[in-house]
Amino acid sequence: MTWENKLMRTVRCRNLQNRGTLANLLTAIADEGGVVGAIQLIKESSRAVVRDITIYADDEKQLMSILAVMEENPGTRILEVRDDVLELHRQGKIAIRSRYTIDDLYTMRRVYTPGVAEVCLKIAEDTKLARTYTAISHLVAIVTDGTAILGLGDIGPVAGMPVMEGKAMLMESLVGLSGIPILLNTTDTDEIVDTIANIAPTFAAIQLEDISAPRCFEIETRLQARLNIPVMHDDQHGTAVVTIAALTNACRQSNMDIKHAVIGQIGLGAAGLATCKMLMSHTGNSVLGADLSFDALARLEALGGKPSTLAEIMAQADIVIATTGAPGLIKPEMVQKGQIILALSNPSPEITPDAALAAGAAFAADGTSVNNVLGFPGILRGAVDAQVPYISQKMYLAAAKTIANLANGDELVPNPLDKNVHQAVARAVVEQAIQEGLCKAEFVTYIED
Amino acid sequence: MTWENKLMRTVRCRNLQNRGTLANLLTAIADEGGVVGAIQLIKESSRAVVRDITIYADDEKQLMSILAVMEENPGTRILEVRDDVLELHRQGKIAIRSRYTIDDLYTMRRVYTPGVAEVCLKIAEDTKLARTYTAISHLVAIVTDGTAILGLGDIGPVAGMPVMEGKAMLMESLVGLSGIPILLNTTDTDEIVDTIANIAPTFAAIQLEDISAPRCFEIETRLQARLNIPVMHDDQHGTAVVTIAALTNACRQSNMDIKHAVIGQIGLGAAGLATCKMLMSHTGNSVLGADLSFDALARLEALGGKPSTLAEIMAQADIVIATTGAPGLIKPEMVQKGQIILALSNPSPEITPDAALAAGAAFAADGTSVNNVLGFPGILRGAVDAQVPYISQKMYLAAAKTIANLANGDELVPNPLDKNVHQAVARAVVEQAIQEGLCKAEFVTYIED
Repeated sequence: MTWENKLMRTVRCRNLQNRGTLANLLTAIADEGGVVGAIQLIKESSRAVVRDITIYADDEKQLMSILAVMEENPGTRILEVRDDVLELHRQGKIAIRSRYTIDDLYTMRRVYTPGVAEVCLKIAEDTKLARTYTAISHLVAIVTDGTAILGLGDIGPVAGMPVMEGKAMLMESLVGLSGIPILLNTTDTDEIVDTIANIAPTFAAIQLEDISAPRCFEIETRLQARLNIPVMHDDQHGTAVVTIAALTNACRQSNMDIKHAVIGQIGLGAAGLATCKMLMSHTGNSVLGADLSFDALARLEALGGKPSTLAEIMAQADIVIATTGAPGLIKPEMVQKGQIILALSNPSPEITPDAALAAGAAFAADGTSVNNVLGFPGILRGAVDAQVPYISQKMYLAAAKTIANLANGDELVPNPLDKNVHQAVARAVVEQAIQEGLCKAEFVTYIED
Repeated sequence: MTWENKLMRTVRCRNLQNRGTLANLLTAIADEGGVVGAIQLIKESSRAVVRDITIYADDEKQLMSILAVMEENPGTRILEVRDDVLELHRQGKIAIRSRYTIDDLYTMRRVYTPGVAEVCLKIAEDTKLARTYTAISHLVAIVTDGTAILGLGDIGPVAGMPVMEGKAMLMESLVGLSGIPILLNTTDTDEIVDTIANIAPTFAAIQLEDISAPRCFEIETRLQARLNIPVMHDDQHGTAVVTIAALTNACRQSNMDIKHAVIGQIGLGAAGLATCKMLMSHTGNSVLGADLSFDALARLEALGGKPSTLAEIMAQADIVIATTGAPGLIKPEMVQKGQIILALSNPSPEITPDAALAAGAAFAADGTSVNNVLGFPGILRGAVDAQVPYISQKMYLAAAKTIANLANGDELVPNPLDKNVHQAVARAVVEQAIQEGLCKAEFVTYIED
């Protein structure tokens, strides 16, 4: 059973104290195809027992029929049906916390007026001290206009908030950065650039998130040109870093030399184009790229890539990467013997790994294992700690190599929740920044083990 | 001794284990006029003792001479001098916290992808649900352009960050709101309005902070006209609410009826003008106002106030409120017998309470007791919970009355760190919102006791 595609509900039931009521209830659920998870006793009296029963169903229809048989079970009454995933999101998943409790006037006078005035004046004299004495040292804006939320598309910035909060949670949990969601009330490129530039002094870095192509390219480029803090569009570079890490291990496991391989990228959206750019920087060779949009092909050509087609890439490339969002686009008969195929569209790949391997591929993977949570936390932590003015291609590549090296055995990439991985990525970015002369921090305090 | 104006340093000393070393050291400090606070043992060996000694000095010069005599004390070596107030501000005073720990993939899948998608789609269908399932329900922007930070003036937004963080700490500690500092890279009125409007979907309310007059008036008015969430310039309304609360108790203690008193406001900046407006709304009468700026007088007149002069107000008013920033502006010979005088400029008032009382005033107070921490947390909590589109004058007045009522005995205002006060203010604002038909929330969950 794949849990993630199941609907999960918590059903609060009151069962009469008659022998067999619970057993009959569970049998009825199972007979409808439902799966029972946790059962928790809530209240008990001589007449009845109240329990929270977690049930899993394949779809809404099955859920309804499970609830119907539960209601019909003799002695059972449903008191409440709760959606606990939804409950987890109630009131949001992040909050501001004070780093000290203010429980007396003495403390208030030290952290607020009048004590705060001395700190303000010190920063007014030397703005660099804001990185030492304010939260600017760890605040990262997570900015979206809501036009390309997950695979859901243009659902608007407010509906994208749960995703932005998720990113903020991961930043905090994995590397101790404070991600601040910023939801934009505009999709106009000029307005977006001006708005973010106008609030930029608040932050140590800007993460652009789920902004649709092609506006995302121009917004990132123009904003980075205006600001002296890193601006990173995660859907481009974060995804590219993790893709290249996975590809590195795929090559190692298939004994293929990436620097002598013909590489083809199918789909030149935000992730695809950034992957091409990073691959060309890494290998020193051009890559083939295919997309239905002429503009996308022109952007690839401007970067030094070779516009191509799906058929040509499948016929010529040693390595094929697909990020098209088109399930089943790659037919088994297109696969060449010995190819490495990363079909990364989620939730349904361009070709399943099994089908690709059966058709002769040397190595095949889909997007489930290539999780971009592996990239952005460590990259941003390193960039913020080193106070780089921008994140270079070499820093991204250093991150990709580090991620690849930390995978064990036949893993493509390591566990995304392993904090050691994120610390290693942050260090790799800082070290590369020092080598390139882009580290502006006088002392880099690595995050703690 | 008033602690707040003292410099405080923590000095780490190594004293040889010779009889009398510490005693001689403390004597030397006292002889230089220094005050010793906490003494903490850090390390001890048979030869020496390391201690952290907290010392207070009147100014930088005295501090230097204290440190000099400490260095000269036989057997003593200074290892380190620390500024602990500054240390409290290191890395800032606020951070983002996750409301759940993500320590396994199962949790990550529930709070991030793919579980988050269902929540996003629910909100896309009905945007109002964002108040239930995202942090928008408790995020408040604390926006400044750095032009009027505390009494320090135009020191820029970055140097103002410690104050914004202090406000965020107070919001979190007192009423559970998540204040997000937003530092503006512009002082242009149009740009400020556009920028805040463009990021407004992120927040349940906007608090404008330390923006200089007269731009603050136009910015607040135009922004409120564009947005359907409350916009509150704290330096206007927050200060006015607390001033009126204090004045209410001053009148009660002096047996003066505020509705039949002649009231004069000296100084028509952000706080002064807002106080006039709220007083006129409260009493139904006009007020006298004085300011050196003709524009300020014109603004008062437009609101229904009467432009006047310092001399006229001092001669005619039963109640005088001064917020000019000009220490000693009110001479004792100007004071009329029986007047109530609130001289609120910090840190030095227009006339000290002692001088005003000696000159015949019935009641006198300065700004030390009129702390605007009493106002904004509860007002914003109430406005956010009720989901009002704006905060009305009646809501501000309800807050002022509640604060006044909760003062004990001869207090002008209650303890600003008493959470019960802030809860009561929030409730008063919600109740007033319901009465005015401005409460858009279906259910108001009062913050917990």
